[in-house]
Amino acid sequence: MADGFMDQRRVPELADIVEASKRIEGVATKTPLVESPSLSKRFGRRVYLKLECFQPIRVFKIRGAYNKISQLTSKNIVAVSSGNHGMAVAYSSRLLGKKCTVILPETAVQEKVNTIIEYGAEVIKYGRYNIDRDAKAREIISKTGATLVHPFNDPDIIAGQGTCGLEIANQLEDFDSVIVPVGGGGLISGISIAIKSLKPDAKVYGVEPQGAPKLQAALKAGKIITIDSPKSIADGLIPSAVGDLTLEACRKHVDAVYTVSDDEILAAMKLLIREAHIFPEPSGAAPAVVLISNKDVEKLGEKVVLVISGGNVSLDLLSKTLNGREDRI
Amino acid sequence: MADGFMDQRRVPELADIVEASKRIEGVATKTPLVESPSLSKRFGRRVYLKLECFQPIRVFKIRGAYNKISQLTSKNIVAVSSGNHGMAVAYSSRLLGKKCTVILPETAVQEKVNTIIEYGAEVIKYGRYNIDRDAKAREIISKTGATLVHPFNDPDIIAGQGTCGLEIANQLEDFDSVIVPVGGGGLISGISIAIKSLKPDAKVYGVEPQGAPKLQAALKAGKIITIDSPKSIADGLIPSAVGDLTLEACRKHVDAVYTVSDDEILAAMKLLIREAHIFPEPSGAAPAVVLISNKDVEKLGEKVVLVISGGNVSLDLLSKTLNGREDRI
Repeated sequence: MADGFMDQRRVPELADIVEASKRIEGVATKTPLVESPSLSKRFGRRVYLKLECFQPIRVFKIRGAYNKISQLTSKNIVAVSSGNHGMAVAYSSRLLGKKCTVILPETAVQEKVNTIIEYGAEVIKYGRYNIDRDAKAREIISKTGATLVHPFNDPDIIAGQGTCGLEIANQLEDFDSVIVPVGGGGLISGISIAIKSLKPDAKVYGVEPQGAPKLQAALKAGKIITIDSPKSIADGLIPSAVGDLTLEACRKHVDAVYTVSDDEILAAMKLLIREAHIFPEPSGAAPAVVLISNKDVEKLGEKVVLVISGGNVSLDLLSKTLNGREDRI
Repeated sequence: MADGFMDQRRVPELADIVEASKRIEGVATKTPLVESPSLSKRFGRRVYLKLECFQPIRVFKIRGAYNKISQLTSKNIVAVSSGNHGMAVAYSSRLLGKKCTVILPETAVQEKVNTIIEYGAEVIKYGRYNIDRDAKAREIISKTGATLVHPFNDPDIIAGQGTCGLEIANQLEDFDSVIVPVGGGGLISGISIAIKSLKPDAKVYGVEPQGAPKLQAALKAGKIITIDSPKSIADGLIPSAVGDLTLEACRKHVDAVYTVSDDEILAAMKLLIREAHIFPEPSGAAPAVVLISNKDVEKLGEKVVLVISGGNVSLDLLSKTLNGREDRI
């Protein structure tokens, strides 16, 4: 990879996360951690929500992206992402006065493309059946000397996402478990490093879609496994594989990984909207499935933290989850 | 009034609010204060939301009710309220092992009645055209020695609500104005005492419905004015008059009071749901009207805090506010 941090390609430690937390101060929000009394009552244990949906870009990704980009000397940044990572890189680049290019599929949702453009990035589209997006990225890099910012398999990205775990450990005196959604594993790697350093008795559990069980597969095989055609309504959780760094961190620090169906994720969204009065995107609702579907729920202990990773949800999906409801929340 | 605090019937001071904050610790939530980037952008100034909708009972009222009831020696508590105050008194009484009776109109919304019963209170209903609810309260008080907890005109209630202002002053280094919904004036009294003590340069503005302008009328007349048939969709803001203590506090500390229409409140709810991704009840949305309707908006300064006082909103009203929308938030 053509970034300047090759010599630091190691899984970060708590100290790296603490450094990251200083770098992102004033840019990423120290998001609220609140108990949901109605979920606590429903599940017979205290349920806390870490609300990354209150980040400026409504998703945790700003933590890692800003931590990474603020350390780059390159004036040109490239990201390959049609979603939250692209938004985070565009947003951070603008704040840091860097030129940003985001490479997107032609099929990207227009609203997300608009947001990325609004954050000042140049957008380059590639065809759906034309798999040269990496070639496109390489071309830009060689032409402009730009640095590619990977969405998860990068020490500075992982350390940045870890600040979410650092906050949880500071916000809540004691807790038994933290449940984290898993895309490429950047968030759960960072969080689990922070939690296991500061609260070694707490468990960290991952949740990934049945249609994209790349972390569970990799942990079982002891190596990176690529999932063919990963698919889920949780569009933040469908990379085809974890990375070497995220696999290493998860192997050491993650206690178990659960797979969940799209129907379960939708039911979790509905419950969180109706009972906790928050707007999670599907990826952000996934951790609640572990409680709802009673997956080893006794293992979770008396105090459970759900990481609501983001809230970039369409009003259309929101309305659908509200249909067929009782009258009052 | 038959409570034991008659000798302390004075407007509370900062020290009383600090004491209250210790009493309510672990019961009331130190609620999040978050910036809404989309509202900041829309209104050309930084807009922060103090999210009382994250209280255990989804409304600030728990602050005052618990502060009051935790100091009472009486084992029997009475409240007259079909809404948030009744819920707060029932909830606090249960936590403190006291017997609670809530006197309600026959026409009270069944879900709220259920919630109050669920919190362990006894419910007594009175007829809509039968104005003996005060007689009923007096009867219970004389029979059981119960203490009536007033919804706003009480030093301990005001001091309790003031903890919300204390938190704002601690959570945000500097700000120019705080906008607070006005029912009987308990919340704005407490908040304005705290803010003017700790951040004397900040302004405190009140918002009340056009159909219940009791604070504005009282400030203008220099005495309590009773509004005939107060009416608003904001069911938390329709007492017919402020009290002597809340009037005194507001006269000293509140910089201006705006009246807003129900249509403006509904538009504010819609905006807060769609752009800030929160679920305010109508009362809680009212402060945003000052920004939306551009009421002296320049006076608000560069950093504005909206107190989102509660989130006990029906899914029905929520769905209505989402109709006729664009597709994506």
